[in-house]
Formats: sequence, C-alpha cells, structure tokens
Amino acid sequence: MATSSVPSGPVSGPAASPDAVADLLGALAYGSLVAFDRLAADALLAPDLTRRARLAVMAGAEIGNYQRLASRLSSLGVRPASAMEPFQAALDAYHEATAPRDWLEGLVKAYVGDGITDDFYREIAPFLGDGDRELVLEVLHDTEYAEFAVGEIRAAIEADPRVANRLGLWARRLVGEAMTQAQRVAAERDSLVELVVAGTGDLVGVGALFKRLSQGHGERMRVVGLNN
Amino acid sequence: MATSSVPSGPVSGPAASPDAVADLLGALAYGSLVAFDRLAADALLAPDLTRRARLAVMAGAEIGNYQRLASRLSSLGVRPASAMEPFQAALDAYHEATAPRDWLEGLVKAYVGDGITDDFYREIAPFLGDGDRELVLEVLHDTEYAEFAVGEIRAAIEADPRVANRLGLWARRLVGEAMTQAQRVAAERDSLVELVVAGTGDLVGVGALFKRLSQGHGERMRVVGLNN
Repeated sequence: MATSSVPSGPVSGPAASPDAVADLLGALAYGSLVAFDRLAADALLAPDLTRRARLAVMAGAEIGNYQRLASRLSSLGVRPASAMEPFQAALDAYHEATAPRDWLEGLVKAYVGDGITDDFYREIAPFLGDGDRELVLEVLHDTEYAEFAVGEIRAAIEADPRVANRLGLWARRLVGEAMTQAQRVAAERDSLVELVVAGTGDLVGVGALFKRLSQGHGERMRVVGLNN
Repeated sequence: MATSSVPSGPVSGPAASPDAVADLLGALAYGSLVAFDRLAADALLAPDLTRRARLAVMAGAEIGNYQRLASRLSSLGVRPASAMEPFQAALDAYHEATAPRDWLEGLVKAYVGDGITDDFYREIAPFLGDGDRELVLEVLHDTEYAEFAVGEIRAAIEADPRVANRLGLWARRLVGEAMTQAQRVAAERDSLVELVVAGTGDLVGVGALFKRLSQGHGERMRVVGLNN
C-alpha cells in the first residue's frame, strides 16, 4: 500500500460491511447518473458542435460506469434503485444549487467535482474487498476529460484574465456546496462513516484523509490557473 | 436482396456518391446526438429511479452510435461537425416542436421516431458500399428499447383507456412535424435525394419506399394500441 496515489493510513485489509459496500456503490451509481444529466445539459451550452459532442461522449461514459455499478449491485442482491435512493436528495440538492450559467462554469464544475470525488474513491477503494476495489478504481473518470477541461479553462483565462476571478469564486462555491451535502450524507449513513473511520484507522486518520483531498483540490486549481 | 426487411426496388449495387455517404452518416450522427439530448431530458420525467436509469442507458447507447459514426466520418476525411451541420436546423426544429410534456409522450416519441428512422436507414443501407452498409445497420436502435416502450404504453392505456386518444393525437403530430422537416432536408441536400432516387430506381420507387415506411409506422401503432 506504499504507492504514491494510495493513502498512508493504517489499512489492514478489507474493512467494508455489506451495507457499506452497497452504500458506496449506490452513491457512485447515483453520482454517475446525475453526472450524466449534468454533462448532457452542459453539452447544450457548448460554443460549437465539436465541443458539444465531446461533452456528450463524456456523459455516455458516465452511463457506462452506471451500468457496471448497477450490475454489481444486482449481483450482490441489492436493487440498484434502493442503493441509490439514500443519496438522491443530497446529490440533487448539490446539482440544483450549482447549475452552471455557461460553458466554462460547466467545465470547472466537472473538473473540480470529478477531481475531488475521484480522489475520495481512490482513498476508499483499498478498504474494499477484491472485486469491488477494482470496480471502484475502474469507474473513476478518464484523465482525457480533465485534460480537455484544463485546456479549455486555461485558454479562456488567457483570452480574458478577468475570467480567472469569476471561475475561482465559482470553484469555491462548488466546494462549499459539496461539503454541505457530504455532511448531510455522513449524518445519515452510519455504515459509510464507519467504513471511512475503520479504513483510515481513527478520527485523526479521517482528518488526514480530508487534508489530502483538500491538497489535491488545491493542486488542480493551480494547474488550471485559478486561485484556491 | 430478397430478404423480407429489405426493399424490393431495383437495387443494382452501391449507388452512393461520397457526398451522399457523408450526408447520410452526418444525418445519422447528428440524429444520435439529439436523440441523446432528448432521452437525457426525458429520463428526468421518469416516474421512478429504475425507469430513469433505463432511459439514461438508452441515451448512452445513442452516444456509442455517435462515436462510431463520427469515427467513420473522420476516417473518410470528413470533419464530423461539418457533416452534421446541414441537418442541425431541421432536427433541432423537429425536437423543439415536439418537446414531450410527460413520461408517456417521451416514450411514444422515441418509439415512433426511432421506428420510422430505423426503417428509413434499413431501406437506404443496401445502396451503400460494404463498410458503410454494415455500420448503418449496426447503429439502428436495439429492439429491447422498443419493447420497453411498448410495455409502458400498453400498461398506461390499460390503466386509463382515455390515454390512447391523447397519445394517438400526439403520434400524428410527431409524424407531421417529421415530414415537414424531412421535406426541408430533401429540398437542401441534392446528393441525398439522388441516392434515394437512384437506389429505389425512380420516383415510383421513392413513392413505394414512403408507402412501406407508412405501413411500418401503422403496424407499430397497432402493436401499441394506438389509432393511426
């Protein structure tokens, strides 16, 4: 477990209860479904047909992930809809509170949101059993899309440096809303919280995990030329 | 060419000019992209999460088709966006004029629209060269989705027979709007019209093709319990 992309906390093999696995896969599955909705809507904000198609293809990839997660849930004897429902209110609230007003806000939202959630699932994956660990790592977002977003955002800032300020504020709002909804989920899903606490070792480990997520986010903001 | 699903007109091998092939693949590609938008929007009208996911998966399949068509266009040296642009106005106008007001209208729209366009492309495919013929046949819609729509629409009519009248009117409006936009495309894309005329033999052959499309639509309406 001593690779650079994996947490350094005291992991001692799979710590995940069946409830926690269903929660995690359900959250990922509903996350894919709403990410699909979001990307499909954002595609219509694209300045041209080529970029619109690009976002539509990203949305299609989310559905591919959804299908894999739903199929895994079914094979565990869990109805996908039942596993997703506990996360519906929080994820819907997040997306309703952060509807992008234009193409760039949509890209920043996908870039920031995918980055943080991917980092989170990369941290959690080692706490899972064999099949689920690989599945969770495989449904993370393709770096191709982050690279596309980075290119578009940097070009926009170069063309008009004032854009950086607006998008920086937007990114802070996204993180704030995400934190609010994550706390809501944590308050309701004990098994998921237990998984994170057991996996990281203790509350100090949980704190360290959040610090790593925050550092990863800061690094992504720097890459794209936005203040954190 | 004597199978039951293929036109009986005087087909004498590939009749398609490169322009006509680019037009056909471009129309199919943009059709996939807007079908994706439409299904993604309609998914949000679903009465439950299971049905919503089902429509999202159908939308994802459209994007898979889009990617194959775009990749074929690129390999022919045609920019996908350039091949799609001539069809953008007509297809957008069709979808704007026929935005479903509820879940059932969305299903009827997908069922009716996919049925007619699939029949049309099935008729045209034999006029194409080897690689394109198979591609066009492969990107037709999976029957699984038509069966899903049939089941939902029939169940709704069984629960409330008055629904059949409303949905029958809706289907007639869909066909009317589609004809309007098809005529608009035909007036603008000579190479596509030439392909259809040459492939079917003459204007009598074109008339017979439209009669077959109309019969196929009538049969699908009967299957689902709607008046044509």
